[in-house]
Amino acid sequence: MIYDLLIHNGTVITMNPDFDVLDKGFVGISNGAIKEVAPQRDDVPLPEARERIDASGGIIMPGLVNTHTHAPMSLFRGLADDLPLMKWLNEYIFPAESRFITPESVYAASLLSCAEMILSGTTCLCDGYFFEDNVAEAVHKIGMRGVLGQGVIDFPAPGVPDPKKNVDAAERFMADWTGVTPLITPGLFCHSPYTCSEQTLKAAKSLSNKTGALFQIHAAETKAEVAEIRKRDRTTPIQYLDRIGIIDDHTLLVHAIYLDETDMECVRRRNTNISVTTESEMKLASGVARVPELIKRGIPVGLGTDGCASNNDLDLFQEMGMTARLQKVQTGDPSVMDAKTVMAMATVKGAEAIGLGSLTGSIEVGKRADVIVIDTRKPHLTPMYHPCSHLVYAASGPDVNDVIIDGKLIMRGRNIKTIDVQEVMGAVNRLGADIQAGSAI
Amino acid sequence: MIYDLLIHNGTVITMNPDFDVLDKGFVGISNGAIKEVAPQRDDVPLPEARERIDASGGIIMPGLVNTHTHAPMSLFRGLADDLPLMKWLNEYIFPAESRFITPESVYAASLLSCAEMILSGTTCLCDGYFFEDNVAEAVHKIGMRGVLGQGVIDFPAPGVPDPKKNVDAAERFMADWTGVTPLITPGLFCHSPYTCSEQTLKAAKSLSNKTGALFQIHAAETKAEVAEIRKRDRTTPIQYLDRIGIIDDHTLLVHAIYLDETDMECVRRRNTNISVTTESEMKLASGVARVPELIKRGIPVGLGTDGCASNNDLDLFQEMGMTARLQKVQTGDPSVMDAKTVMAMATVKGAEAIGLGSLTGSIEVGKRADVIVIDTRKPHLTPMYHPCSHLVYAASGPDVNDVIIDGKLIMRGRNIKTIDVQEVMGAVNRLGADIQAGSAI
Repeated sequence: MIYDLLIHNGTVITMNPDFDVLDKGFVGISNGAIKEVAPQRDDVPLPEARERIDASGGIIMPGLVNTHTHAPMSLFRGLADDLPLMKWLNEYIFPAESRFITPESVYAASLLSCAEMILSGTTCLCDGYFFEDNVAEAVHKIGMRGVLGQGVIDFPAPGVPDPKKNVDAAERFMADWTGVTPLITPGLFCHSPYTCSEQTLKAAKSLSNKTGALFQIHAAETKAEVAEIRKRDRTTPIQYLDRIGIIDDHTLLVHAIYLDETDMECVRRRNTNISVTTESEMKLASGVARVPELIKRGIPVGLGTDGCASNNDLDLFQEMGMTARLQKVQTGDPSVMDAKTVMAMATVKGAEAIGLGSLTGSIEVGKRADVIVIDTRKPHLTPMYHPCSHLVYAASGPDVNDVIIDGKLIMRGRNIKTIDVQEVMGAVNRLGADIQAGSAI
Repeated sequence: MIYDLLIHNGTVITMNPDFDVLDKGFVGISNGAIKEVAPQRDDVPLPEARERIDASGGIIMPGLVNTHTHAPMSLFRGLADDLPLMKWLNEYIFPAESRFITPESVYAASLLSCAEMILSGTTCLCDGYFFEDNVAEAVHKIGMRGVLGQGVIDFPAPGVPDPKKNVDAAERFMADWTGVTPLITPGLFCHSPYTCSEQTLKAAKSLSNKTGALFQIHAAETKAEVAEIRKRDRTTPIQYLDRIGIIDDHTLLVHAIYLDETDMECVRRRNTNISVTTESEMKLASGVARVPELIKRGIPVGLGTDGCASNNDLDLFQEMGMTARLQKVQTGDPSVMDAKTVMAMATVKGAEAIGLGSLTGSIEVGKRADVIVIDTRKPHLTPMYHPCSHLVYAASGPDVNDVIIDGKLIMRGRNIKTIDVQEVMGAVNRLGADIQAGSAI
């Protein structure tokens, strides 16, 4: 057999169920799928291949899975920081969104975000925003894998001026993008239990049930939300969502910071999924999710970056390091959230949480070939005793050298092959100049 | 006047007392000092210079100051993680130190750490370890600025087998390195109030008082230390150190996590300095320093990376982002520790904390020329509304393009000019292979 692509000479971190690491191994890829993963022996010739990547001295690992982001928000990266949440939202983000979010700006900023994600080793995103059609166009253009959710909220929103039609808009988006490309899985994104009515949530969930699409929702994110739901519904956000039929195995609860024991048990029993966005949750001072307890219960917990306006980057390597360190200091236990556990969140568990566990998140025969190569021949990654330690505690996005998505070489030697990055940055810089001129910032 | 070096066309972040930022400016350098800092006008020609750096589209800022590290410990980067503190120290770090720390390994690993620091924009380090002579040789070789402290501890230590001679060894180190080069300021580093006796601490402080050298000490780092000092001395670590005459304006308290109101008042009244090492303190689950309260009192608080064995890298940009985010989530207030405050910790306040405030830490006429240039033309730094926001929340070490120390161009376009980085990595990799072969790891 002649492979389409062979990646060899690297330490292969498979993230398979046994967490196998091959000190020196190769990955054979054909028709977009992983066909062989094996240790390399000096006395056995490598398989033939039409194209080869020599990962000498480097690490071959699954592409990272960003389980929660709002790709278009790179447009507002660093527009306003260090502010109380409501002032930040009401005086900066919401006004900027209402003035500057258009199909064109969504496309340009999403392409920028996708470029940033690929440059930092992310091969799959789970996104939720408005004009999600245009996000999908950008994801398709650059060649990433994604679960993309059209936003649903009970206020006038970009592209959906009449909130009564918010679920219809999501239905149309899902119909339009079903079957277009195997890399894009359409879904929907209800903003939260306090910005969507029970009726809206039920209608959206019914739509997602029809197709099996992922239902994303921000939930139990802040103390204020918990207090509001307590007052309105006399229970917790999770119990409220469970009562109205939202909590099941096709739902992704984003943030999920304020969960009590009953909530965690409910999430476990319903096989529901969670996305934690550590850096953003810290920067907005939302709180610290009880990640070790969630994982201990067997709940699939993935990592996400959240949008650029509150992070302010999309580097999942930094998110891994931040998550491990925050949980250690929060619990007072340095053995909590070891490197392998955090790596699983950013790969195989993240894929499972967004419903793509059978396709991506590990290097295993039969999965689609979403693979990245890390260059470890750098001072900050020298010496190397344990590759996973470096990936979580010392590596960052710029250490990613090559990115393969669905078997296709999307980035080689840090050059993205599917788009012109300079052009994309130029387009967003022009939009940014308009925003700066048009805002009182 | 013809400058030796002119850096132009960039956004100049001065970190001067007014926090002036020049949207487009230049910095003129001669004889190692900053001679002119000015906005650039299209109708006025730039000053003449023998060498120029065009920082187009980038940021010109002071080099970062790492106020606490143990440079040789890059040798043990990632040797062991995710362990309880005492198991990590007693089963991994101390045995590895006793077997593998030699003058040669200290030199090689220090050179590697210095290379990593320069590659991530740090121009000045405050270090404490054993065989500090060899650390100094490495710092001198690469051309960094440093306050270097020979380690003092009441146990047999590398290079100081007889603890009775620990202060003598420090005295000899200080004598040997005084006046050798203006870039190196010798000092001493007492390990902690629980590993050095009162007699040792007093003798070391008396030595530092003679010369005005910086007295570094880990203090109030863990709950266990606080309990031990409480039991032994019936007071807090800070009150104990104050009682024996350690707390003054030439002392740097490292970590300083467990300070009560009386301790903070004592530190303020004595004009004592603090170094906080957020990433390491999180990873070891030591605790969260009360940074906003310390800064509010006017105490000079700098940032440090700590050693590579507990970080596991030396990137102060990531340390800035981590510190801002951790303090926000810890206090529940997103307006705490804004980007400018954190930048001051990593530059001008850090320089002040280690006694070099008149020499480095800001771009001001008369200071030595320790300057770095950041390349912001990258997706993760696009668009740019506020440069300081990007530096704290989105940039990282690899965005640093050029490094000037004491007026000398040490790194240009990410190539370090004073050492062969490949050779340095090779040397440490060989040592790492011995360690891996010799340890049960």
